[in-house]
Amino acid sequence: MAGSLAQSTFLRACRRETVPFTPVWFMRQAGRSLPEYRDLRIGTGMLESCQRPDLVTEITLQPVRRHGVDAAIFFSDIVVPLKAIGVDLDIVPGVGPVVASPIRSAADLGQLRELEPGDVPYVTEAVQALVRELGATPLIGFAGAPFTLASYLVEGGPSRTHARTKALMYGDPELWHALCERLASITSAFLRVQIEAGASAIQLFDSWAGALSESDYRRYVLPHSARVLGGVTSVPRIHFGVGTGELLAAMGEAGADVVGVDWRIPLDVASKRIGGDKAVQGNLDPAVVFASEPVIESQVKRILDEGRAAPGHVFNLGHGVLPESDPGVLTRIVELVHEHGRRA
Amino acid sequence: MAGSLAQSTFLRACRRETVPFTPVWFMRQAGRSLPEYRDLRIGTGMLESCQRPDLVTEITLQPVRRHGVDAAIFFSDIVVPLKAIGVDLDIVPGVGPVVASPIRSAADLGQLRELEPGDVPYVTEAVQALVRELGATPLIGFAGAPFTLASYLVEGGPSRTHARTKALMYGDPELWHALCERLASITSAFLRVQIEAGASAIQLFDSWAGALSESDYRRYVLPHSARVLGGVTSVPRIHFGVGTGELLAAMGEAGADVVGVDWRIPLDVASKRIGGDKAVQGNLDPAVVFASEPVIESQVKRILDEGRAAPGHVFNLGHGVLPESDPGVLTRIVELVHEHGRRA
Repeated sequence: MAGSLAQSTFLRACRRETVPFTPVWFMRQAGRSLPEYRDLRIGTGMLESCQRPDLVTEITLQPVRRHGVDAAIFFSDIVVPLKAIGVDLDIVPGVGPVVASPIRSAADLGQLRELEPGDVPYVTEAVQALVRELGATPLIGFAGAPFTLASYLVEGGPSRTHARTKALMYGDPELWHALCERLASITSAFLRVQIEAGASAIQLFDSWAGALSESDYRRYVLPHSARVLGGVTSVPRIHFGVGTGELLAAMGEAGADVVGVDWRIPLDVASKRIGGDKAVQGNLDPAVVFASEPVIESQVKRILDEGRAAPGHVFNLGHGVLPESDPGVLTRIVELVHEHGRRA
Repeated sequence: MAGSLAQSTFLRACRRETVPFTPVWFMRQAGRSLPEYRDLRIGTGMLESCQRPDLVTEITLQPVRRHGVDAAIFFSDIVVPLKAIGVDLDIVPGVGPVVASPIRSAADLGQLRELEPGDVPYVTEAVQALVRELGATPLIGFAGAPFTLASYLVEGGPSRTHARTKALMYGDPELWHALCERLASITSAFLRVQIEAGASAIQLFDSWAGALSESDYRRYVLPHSARVLGGVTSVPRIHFGVGTGELLAAMGEAGADVVGVDWRIPLDVASKRIGGDKAVQGNLDPAVVFASEPVIESQVKRILDEGRAAPGHVFNLGHGVLPESDPGVLTRIVELVHEHGRRA
């Protein structure tokens, strides 16, 4: 079984090896689009769900069973490690993470201590259970990158402009780098817990990095993400953000085997910008699930064609599954990818 | 006076003629960053403010007086023409435009009739008063582009994902195009009112176009924006959106003398992508106002340098002024642009 896991199509594609077909999974495949998920979550808050190994295991498995995707993604939230070290925050339905005391000064950094494996026993337990259940299907561990975590901590919640975050970054670079160094340590430790428990790959989500120009990204963000990714070289690393057309090369340089690409840029163009020997992941617009089947099929084919320009391709959406998505359509997309993504 | 207006630095830059210095104005320069604006707005809602010529005139003039910018932008909101034809909507503080009955079916199109100049007498009156007051300083008229207006109408309010908008676009292209055709007519009429009353240039805001890939932009959006821009060729036309790195060429092709560029992409790279003989506008990250003066100065100089690669450059932020901005810093940026932007 261990042999077939290591030779799974998903891991082979991440390693830029030949594959029988293009593997596919969906960001946020475990979650609100599935009725069985909504049933399971009744009466249980998001953070509590992430802290219960039985729920995490079941929720992570649901889309694997239903859609036949080629990888599972560990069900968690990017703020889980922050909660685990005692940051006072909650995930508010319809809003997102809300932080009680946003970080705005050096004194506020006191909220951020190192993460120890003992802080997240439920993660270790759930990953171990999942690896047993999943057999030859790889489990992707994940964490939020320092910039995206910093944005939540500085803003106090989700932000469209990231104005306070950038104000801190531009206005007090020393404090900014101190904050990101702490977040890099926490994130690295959180990923190591998942890898040690058996995760076969990891994805670092820098969801909001696309809010920055390339020069700011290189100065204020890349060194911290590089520290995280440089510490987890034992498994394939996927590095993803939204609206990162101008940052693709830099995000690859930060340390990635696979660079995630949103739907704004064709994968062949993206692969050229990324350069080198990296695989790409993506990039169907999540809203295409609302189109007719012929439109979906032609978009899937286009993306598979464009993905052949890269040294490896993991099919995915360009961002997370929209909660309003019809799960039947997602299953059909998996079938279409497997059907049209066959490689001689 | 008319002669000096036509030869103003801003209009010369838009026309790609030689200029003594790089002209500068700021998107949302009239608005919440100014204490004199906040004073004036006490007790008056946003839509009501846009419908009172005395307030519109005063608010439009405030940043010209304070900052010494090289152009005024007409104070309004992209939903004003929709309100004027009877769409039931309001601008809710802290939220944005909220539409009572979102457009989801062909029957809902009945909400959208043609806009007649008589529907917006307050616009004509305010533009005429402003042109008298402004003398040699150009007034930029403006309107929202069909895609961005459609997004508000379909979603019923602001949206991060534009999921319902794209669902309509992909799921019912015929209805989508019918909706955008109506919006293009309304937008064209709204711009013509401003030009006939004396506006010297116009800016078409397709704020959310960056949510689309280039191929979707070309198929679902460009024809409608082109119809709008093709109908107002008597004055320079600026075409702007956020996160449009991949769309710059297409947005130029839609019809523009000047393409607005956000802060994610350097102006020299942007100008190369746009191609041809178009000027660029931008592109200081609005959050840079929170940095120290040396950082601001170096960023202004960098942008002026990069802008010299284009056939014309209008300095601006890469998106609107953030409400938390210090107006003194904005004034200083105008001085820095004028000082470092001198051309032999």
